[in-house]
Amino acid sequence: MNLQTLKGFRDFLPQQMRKRQYVIDALKKVFESYGFEPLETPALEYEEVLLGKYGDEGDKLMYRFEDNGGRKVALRYDQTVPLARVVAYGNQLPAPFKRYQIQPVWRAENTQKGRFREFLQCDIDTVGLDSLYADAEIIACAIKGLEALGFKDFKVIINDRAVFTGMSSADIRIIDKLKKIGKEKVLEELSDKSLLQKIESQKLTQDLEVIFITLKDLGVEKNKYEFSPTLARGLDYYTGMIFEIEIKGYETGSILGGGRYDKLIGMFARENIPAVGCAFGFDRTLEAMDQLGLFPADLATTKVLVTVFSMELGQESIKVSSKLRSNNINCELWLESDTKLEKQLKYADQKGIPYVIIIGPNEASENKVTLKDLTNKTQETISLDEAVSKLSS
Amino acid sequence: MNLQTLKGFRDFLPQQMRKRQYVIDALKKVFESYGFEPLETPALEYEEVLLGKYGDEGDKLMYRFEDNGGRKVALRYDQTVPLARVVAYGNQLPAPFKRYQIQPVWRAENTQKGRFREFLQCDIDTVGLDSLYADAEIIACAIKGLEALGFKDFKVIINDRAVFTGMSSADIRIIDKLKKIGKEKVLEELSDKSLLQKIESQKLTQDLEVIFITLKDLGVEKNKYEFSPTLARGLDYYTGMIFEIEIKGYETGSILGGGRYDKLIGMFARENIPAVGCAFGFDRTLEAMDQLGLFPADLATTKVLVTVFSMELGQESIKVSSKLRSNNINCELWLESDTKLEKQLKYADQKGIPYVIIIGPNEASENKVTLKDLTNKTQETISLDEAVSKLSS
Repeated sequence: MNLQTLKGFRDFLPQQMRKRQYVIDALKKVFESYGFEPLETPALEYEEVLLGKYGDEGDKLMYRFEDNGGRKVALRYDQTVPLARVVAYGNQLPAPFKRYQIQPVWRAENTQKGRFREFLQCDIDTVGLDSLYADAEIIACAIKGLEALGFKDFKVIINDRAVFTGMSSADIRIIDKLKKIGKEKVLEELSDKSLLQKIESQKLTQDLEVIFITLKDLGVEKNKYEFSPTLARGLDYYTGMIFEIEIKGYETGSILGGGRYDKLIGMFARENIPAVGCAFGFDRTLEAMDQLGLFPADLATTKVLVTVFSMELGQESIKVSSKLRSNNINCELWLESDTKLEKQLKYADQKGIPYVIIIGPNEASENKVTLKDLTNKTQETISLDEAVSKLSS
Repeated sequence: MNLQTLKGFRDFLPQQMRKRQYVIDALKKVFESYGFEPLETPALEYEEVLLGKYGDEGDKLMYRFEDNGGRKVALRYDQTVPLARVVAYGNQLPAPFKRYQIQPVWRAENTQKGRFREFLQCDIDTVGLDSLYADAEIIACAIKGLEALGFKDFKVIINDRAVFTGMSSADIRIIDKLKKIGKEKVLEELSDKSLLQKIESQKLTQDLEVIFITLKDLGVEKNKYEFSPTLARGLDYYTGMIFEIEIKGYETGSILGGGRYDKLIGMFARENIPAVGCAFGFDRTLEAMDQLGLFPADLATTKVLVTVFSMELGQESIKVSSKLRSNNINCELWLESDTKLEKQLKYADQKGIPYVIIIGPNEASENKVTLKDLTNKTQETISLDEAVSKLSS
């Protein structure tokens, strides 16, 4: 039997899970500080809700099947179309509706390209407002999110699709590749070579001026963002401001992007509903944090392993673990009474647990415990109260 | 187009999400205080991994299909079989492996019975130990979990499958129905009427004695648990201690159950791997908490709405929102500059935001803000620093 996961699917063991939870918790905290609230939608939707919403490529990569009742269904492909459905369904949503959504999506991608078939999306969107305050807030919130994760050296590249008015989609896509293929190649490919200069000499649009002032008022440092008339992104559905964030020292590409898209969310409601939002590339964010060493050294949730010295002394260890927990110290009790201490220490080490408590016959008779610091390789025999206070600090 | 979710599937809007997150966060905290660590497995598995593991009923209710590459795949049906796969796959797992897992599972259930087709499972398991300490710890952790959620009046019913040694599965199932159908009916249905008395007069097994002593040492109050020789549960795979928790005042049934199952986790490894664990019925837990009024009145994550009085004063409001956030106060800024104050207040009310800040011309000229308490319907005009300190408390 094949015990591997399906290609493009992953088990997340505790060590990876801790990193994922760290990022999710930090981002949620920032999102909530701006008034974004959580939303979740089902993994399965009627196929007709999703089909045709992501172009031919999307229909091809979508997981679609007939369920046991003969209904044509499809697995969640992104979080924007389900959001549009929720908005159209007539739920009693507040207006504006500001939501964040962090759920896996499924796409039958070519895994050779380093892509996953199950991956987490992490979106914030403000629905129902065409105010430029909303545009600025999305950018500010994205920046605060990255700062909360420890990113320092990054740049927000901002543009307005109005810059491309009158240009063909083909030419826009060529200009979008400027960074990737260089000026020479771009000039070669453009239908009209003057287009590049025309775009590069564009000034801030009026909308972007308002957004930039608002960013300043929102406390965003000026060196964090800049106007870039050659940024294009997925112009098929963006209708106004667009932006991306590049991290210095992480070369794979932008880890976050978004913009205003006023004609998408209303697709089921049959009216235009303005919206602006952005999506964190979750796997890229983790990869960049790993590369830049931004994860705290100790993400282990267990503070101390309470070892068991012998069958006779097991009860002492059990009581100590209970006392530690009632003092809000996360502790793991060794669950066997006949294991060599060495093996228990090795286990603590493997799990990244920073402290170990030992209660041998001497400790028990003196009503003390030995507290071992595995990081500094020191130990001391002290009262349980002293150990509690050391472990609480 | 059908904009409803599929039958048995649900959108979770912010108000429900807050409750769900509250429960998940509280339980994770307790699980981690015992050294359980997070694990996640893919939504899709090779069909052969899941098929035949849940009986005929399971095979029937499983979501199965051929993916775009012609692979036979199935959606996660529970979290125990994937755990067994992870254990067998030769990951460098610590031994024992103590994990919690909180993910949705999919079953094509009959929704008429009030069942969902997508629902969250919430499991803790200790794999690789046959020590009775591990059994006691699972029970203690489950109890602490319920206590953390605010449950006070509940009882853990504990039994040992050894009590049923020699009895037929049919008779065991009849005795398991004692509470539901009453003594008379049970006696009627049993193959041998003396069986009931025989079971009811069973004394604590030796294993349960050790578990009960350990529970006491772990700080669990004695009135929280009791031996019940007629408790049977899913005896097909349990091999030792079994337990359920009933909440007083919640009549739908047990909201949590588990036990020892030493012959399941090794299914892919082709060896017996001892394990003990339990599963919270997530939807039932929420329902019971609703019925008993255990959710805090204010689960809203936003503390204050900063209103915008006029176009001219918008900048003041933006700056105030930024200042509040830098003081770690979750605040939502109204994102339009031409909305009537009344509408903004109504919005705060709808979202359950407890405070509102107003900066009109008077406030701006005096460098103050008006802080409105929507719960107590009071308001005061104070400096921003004073408002910060009030909102921080």
